[in-house]
Amino acid sequence: MRLKTAIMNAYDHLKFNADGLIPAIVQEAASGRALMMAWMNRASLEATVSTGKTHFWSRSRQKFWMKGETSGHVQHVKDIAFDCDGDTLLIQVEQSGAACHEGYRSCFFRSFAANGAEARVTEARLQTPEEIYGKK
Amino acid sequence: MRLKTAIMNAYDHLKFNADGLIPAIVQEAASGRALMMAWMNRASLEATVSTGKTHFWSRSRQKFWMKGETSGHVQHVKDIAFDCDGDTLLIQVEQSGAACHEGYRSCFFRSFAANGAEARVTEARLQTPEEIYGKK
Repeated sequence: MRLKTAIMNAYDHLKFNADGLIPAIVQEAASGRALMMAWMNRASLEATVSTGKTHFWSRSRQKFWMKGETSGHVQHVKDIAFDCDGDTLLIQVEQSGAACHEGYRSCFFRSFAANGAEARVTEARLQTPEEIYGKK
Repeated sequence: MRLKTAIMNAYDHLKFNADGLIPAIVQEAASGRALMMAWMNRASLEATVSTGKTHFWSRSRQKFWMKGETSGHVQHVKDIAFDCDGDTLLIQVEQSGAACHEGYRSCFFRSFAANGAEARVTEARLQTPEEIYGKK
């Protein structure tokens, strides 16, 4: 009798939600800076694995998209991890330019101030949205 | 005529989902290691701000909880950031012990292997769940 292999396909560990989506945290591999969080469906994860560039599912536009397809700010994938519950991804990338569509390196450019109420900007803007996407 | 203040309350930037929840990425401040992702409602965020220890909302148990209330593995908050869309939090913490209930430092202890299919464990387990929570 042969033993069943203990090796599981990585996809088998993952739980997509009722909409078929899983949240993906994107982190800059070299600096550890958390850049953004976006959602993936199975197809965008497979495209991310096969191309080495991050692909997501936009819930607001109901659209498959590659990060950087308009801005040029592509993310080159270094590692894809998943959590103990299999319901969140953590993707290490090399980021070209600003990750945030507002022109900041990271989408997390604002923090709660020490008083716990006000918001303060914690990093410099690299580009304006007009410089990235052109005037509208 | 008085000018309206431009200072917004940080909470006013946030968008909780239809269930009243917002995902919170937890990162170790000193190392940059992404530790876990969990969900907060307004009450758990307020408790996090006021106590300086992370509190969440468990979707599976439908329960308010403080990280470390059973395990002792409390997270001391250093910073609370939010993203451009106001729909994700990034919380910098000082972590006591293992963040993961499976005894790993980070919940993201497994990655896709280079072949893009198999899962591989990428860090050493610090404790077994039995050591953390006692035998069941």
